Amino acid sequence: MFFKRNKPKILFIILDGLGDRPIEELDNQTPLEAAQTPNLDLMISKGMGGLIEPVYKGDFPTSKDAHLSLFGYDLDKWKMGRGVFEVIGIGMKMRAGDVALRGDLASVDDKMIIKDRRSGRIRKTQPLLKAIQGIEIEGVKFLIGAGVGHRMGIVMRGQHLSENISDNDKHNINVVPDRVKPLDDASESAFTARILNKFLEQAHNILKDHPLNRKRIKKGKMPANYTLVRTAGMIKPIPSFWEKWQLRACCIAGAGLYKGIGKALGMDLIKVKGATGNFDTDIKAKIKAARKSLKKYNFCFLHIKATDDFSHDGNYEGKRSFIEKFDKELKPIINLKKTITVVTGDHCTPCVLKQHSTDSIPVLLYGNGQDKVDRFSERDCQTGRIGKIKSINFMTGVVEIARQIAGYS
Amino acid sequence: MFFKRNKPKILFIILDGLGDRPIEELDNQTPLEAAQTPNLDLMISKGMGGLIEPVYKGDFPTSKDAHLSLFGYDLDKWKMGRGVFEVIGIGMKMRAGDVALRGDLASVDDKMIIKDRRSGRIRKTQPLLKAIQGIEIEGVKFLIGAGVGHRMGIVMRGQHLSENISDNDKHNINVVPDRVKPLDDASESAFTARILNKFLEQAHNILKDHPLNRKRIKKGKMPANYTLVRTAGMIKPIPSFWEKWQLRACCIAGAGLYKGIGKALGMDLIKVKGATGNFDTDIKAKIKAARKSLKKYNFCFLHIKATDDFSHDGNYEGKRSFIEKFDKELKPIINLKKTITVVTGDHCTPCVLKQHSTDSIPVLLYGNGQDKVDRFSERDCQTGRIGKIKSINFMTGVVEIARQIAGYS
Repeated sequence: MFFKRNKPKILFIILDGLGDRPIEELDNQTPLEAAQTPNLDLMISKGMGGLIEPVYKGDFPTSKDAHLSLFGYDLDKWKMGRGVFEVIGIGMKMRAGDVALRGDLASVDDKMIIKDRRSGRIRKTQPLLKAIQGIEIEGVKFLIGAGVGHRMGIVMRGQHLSENISDNDKHNINVVPDRVKPLDDASESAFTARILNKFLEQAHNILKDHPLNRKRIKKGKMPANYTLVRTAGMIKPIPSFWEKWQLRACCIAGAGLYKGIGKALGMDLIKVKGATGNFDTDIKAKIKAARKSLKKYNFCFLHIKATDDFSHDGNYEGKRSFIEKFDKELKPIINLKKTITVVTGDHCTPCVLKQHSTDSIPVLLYGNGQDKVDRFSERDCQTGRIGKIKSINFMTGVVEIARQIAGYS
Repeated sequence: MFFKRNKPKILFIILDGLGDRPIEELDNQTPLEAAQTPNLDLMISKGMGGLIEPVYKGDFPTSKDAHLSLFGYDLDKWKMGRGVFEVIGIGMKMRAGDVALRGDLASVDDKMIIKDRRSGRIRKTQPLLKAIQGIEIEGVKFLIGAGVGHRMGIVMRGQHLSENISDNDKHNINVVPDRVKPLDDASESAFTARILNKFLEQAHNILKDHPLNRKRIKKGKMPANYTLVRTAGMIKPIPSFWEKWQLRACCIAGAGLYKGIGKALGMDLIKVKGATGNFDTDIKAKIKAARKSLKKYNFCFLHIKATDDFSHDGNYEGKRSFIEKFDKELKPIINLKKTITVVTGDHCTPCVLKQHSTDSIPVLLYGNGQDKVDRFSERDCQTGRIGKIKSINFMTGVVEIARQIAGYS
């Protein structure tokens, strides 16, 4: 080659739903402020702090949109239903023309009223999914993939399908689920909705009499006899991370959606034993794998989910202690040479709200450049040198700064 | 901003169809070898040479594909019918769902046999185009834009349109033009073809009795009474040049297609008086504008069309002397500081073939790096430091090299 290889090294750590609001019980501190974080504080005191303004299309940021925007993808241009990332993330393959949906095994009673949206948090679903695998209706084949617990991926494969269909999940119990409806007047949307409704009926008839469900009922457990579907999406061309940034990228994540985002952007998935996407995830192993990955890759996206889960439960104590647990494992990162490390969230999930918010997200960048911030917190980051930056513009700056220390000139 | 602005400066000059093959009458030299090119030779002797392997999807490279690939766009991923670039290039606006076509005003006789594909190279078409402007058929509106001479852009606007339709142009005279046909079994394609055929009939009925055509016939000129259409395309998301390379880009071109390519990639079009896209184009003015543009932009795409036109006519003498004319205007480029200048072709158009070929394309890169090549020619470029590089990979190297001299580190 007549040109040098791109050499920047970037470790990009996203603690899902990291940012928060002051909590009375924590002396009006946020979980991040209340946490003892000597390593994060060391990194920001030798590096720079700032606030990222999250992107959002509806009332608040979603994880999918937030991640794509942080990676520099304009959401107005690169639209893809969340279903695509969900099914890719659990290892299913998609072809052009397929429609992907997130599915959940749920429990309905005889009157088709939803009694539990997660079938009593069922764990063993393989026999049930196998029973509804490969159903074909009017030339459309239904492919099913197992997610964690009650979760599944559904791929509709056939001609003339459309992603413009509604969910049947009302996100509520003691209601009859919606019928799937077309969201525009194209014949494809009406066709897709009609076929999907047929499938849901057929699947219900198979599942309700399945031996595993009879056994569950006998044991007093909720049967997994209905399928809730949502966030239909078709796969579309999107610039890969390499194509966009000329950086070889990998992804370390436990939860399906984040693996799916990495994969859709052409990142290599690195499997880490013990990376569960839960509070019990093996942080040490993930950090070790991330450090090692940078020998081969220019960019490592490391995703940690638990901070968001604690926030949705309003569990600020759990969030604080998880952040401390995370901080303890950062030593190997601090020693990385000629590497930019970013620690931030995709959006804030304040424990008082128990849901995502549009608050600005604290960020630290370590490895090149310095300011006077010496504590990683929502408040301290306000005065950092990064300033207040829109999420869509952030990656340009990170890549720029990484190139500066990568031996250019 | 917490990061420095991107500072690389790149002038990217494409001489369309530049590369050629040895010609007996030129002592077995190519037009580029036979030409006296002191400035190009100076640039390559202080810079580097190489060969670019062109990309092609059919039998030979097309200008559209060749340009997109040189700009780093993977053609397998970013597919868009040429019609889109043609209509955007002449200043028409497109919306999602529109179908764009290149159109040509042609002459048919009473039996609908094509007698001239360019209506005797008609120049004044405005009254004719106005007469068929805005026709609406079954909810589909036809918008017409004037191109150079007999050329026009057609935008079909309505619901449920498809780009998967054939041309009616047989690229031949003394034949009845084809009917437009759907290219797949989707109902949209059949609908679009049917509506377009209706339009062509309706337009013919309007044009054949138009006063301007009566006048032309009286004067012994070919009437412009039929419309040949080709290369239907729908607009789709494609990463802008900024999004892909983080470089502010502009485009200086005379011919519509190349303006369209620049515009579709989000480049600002710079109008230059005398830039005709023909052999009489004002090279000096274009070079001057390009030099000036780099004060504001990081990347300037400068397109010169005439080399390709001469090649299609087999006019190697014209091509040689045009290259010499171009070379004479390069002084202002040689003096540019901290700038990478690239001179190459999009593909080769050997005069002996009178059409595009798959031959490798000579390239020179001036401004950073040096090798022993001291003459810009197909033969000399074989031994250059750039080596033989696939067109899709070339821009990565150029941007890399430009960043090196832009003050990083």
